[in-house]
Amino acid sequence: MSGLRILGVDPGLRITGFGVIEKIGQRLGYLASGCIRTDPRASLPERLGTIHAGLCQLVAEHRPQQAAVEIVFVNVNPQSTLRLGQARGAAIVALVANGLVVAEYTALQVKQAVVGNGHAEKTQVQHMVRRLLALPADPSPDAADALACAIAHAHGGQGLTGIGRVAPRLGQGRLPLRNKIGI
Amino acid sequence: MSGLRILGVDPGLRITGFGVIEKIGQRLGYLASGCIRTDPRASLPERLGTIHAGLCQLVAEHRPQQAAVEIVFVNVNPQSTLRLGQARGAAIVALVANGLVVAEYTALQVKQAVVGNGHAEKTQVQHMVRRLLALPADPSPDAADALACAIAHAHGGQGLTGIGRVAPRLGQGRLPLRNKIGI
Repeated sequence: MSGLRILGVDPGLRITGFGVIEKIGQRLGYLASGCIRTDPRASLPERLGTIHAGLCQLVAEHRPQQAAVEIVFVNVNPQSTLRLGQARGAAIVALVANGLVVAEYTALQVKQAVVGNGHAEKTQVQHMVRRLLALPADPSPDAADALACAIAHAHGGQGLTGIGRVAPRLGQGRLPLRNKIGI
Repeated sequence: MSGLRILGVDPGLRITGFGVIEKIGQRLGYLASGCIRTDPRASLPERLGTIHAGLCQLVAEHRPQQAAVEIVFVNVNPQSTLRLGQARGAAIVALVANGLVVAEYTALQVKQAVVGNGHAEKTQVQHMVRRLLALPADPSPDAADALACAIAHAHGGQGLTGIGRVAPRLGQGRLPLRNKIGI
């Protein structure tokens, strides 16, 4: 029996965390996680290209059917907000252009679904991600956030604890163009 | 004799302007311009997907060798900055992933190169774009900004008036093929 593969992404211009999980019935399995790092000395287009190419490669490798991305909040520093926005745009289109449905969740929704507390600490998220996916060790913070987002999506609508009801905002990709130009 | 095709892009979540010009020797020719509009009722991933798909289609159709995008400044409204950043990220990776070299110019550089005055009015930019490309009418403001960005890139290094020296920040795409095409 084949499960539902979900790719969680935590975009950032410097580090983009990712995690792939599989949902079979009500069980969750871990498939992969890690980070895409960009070279700070490279140009902005190059860095965005690295994020995009990395995610395209992940999709090709793990063939997820759905994707979940955290909704970011604006930073106090407007330049950081712009940088984060650009990284997020580059990441989301890598998913959409590959035909993935992209759901967005707030950090509050993710924490509520994974820890049962929307204001949980980062270390609690890491700990619960480890427990829920039966990992041998805590994942890195970036990978943990991405995995947590995928878990929130897997439990979408119910939340893990019954408190964290998550209402995803779904976006459907436009498939046909990809075939015409062969990205 | 084949010229250098340049795609200028003015990204925005609602409207993304574009313009394609060709440089043959020191002459500039107009090839295409217009806008990619996104549905405000669609989800963010869908809207970003529309921008990305639209630009991929343009690249496939007009086969530009280089691209120029205006450097945006942060908005007073942080949410607008985030939206613009996401649109910009989606647009830039559409170019980079298709092997295009992407240069970035500030609005000041673009106006100086096209009008000879970094603080020129929008209508002056439209007027000069029309004159320089021998268009039958003023282009729409969005298309004019994109065409102006392409013109600034075509005159890169000298500026049109000798005042507007532009120093492009080049970003190399993953596919170095296009780079080998000489000017």
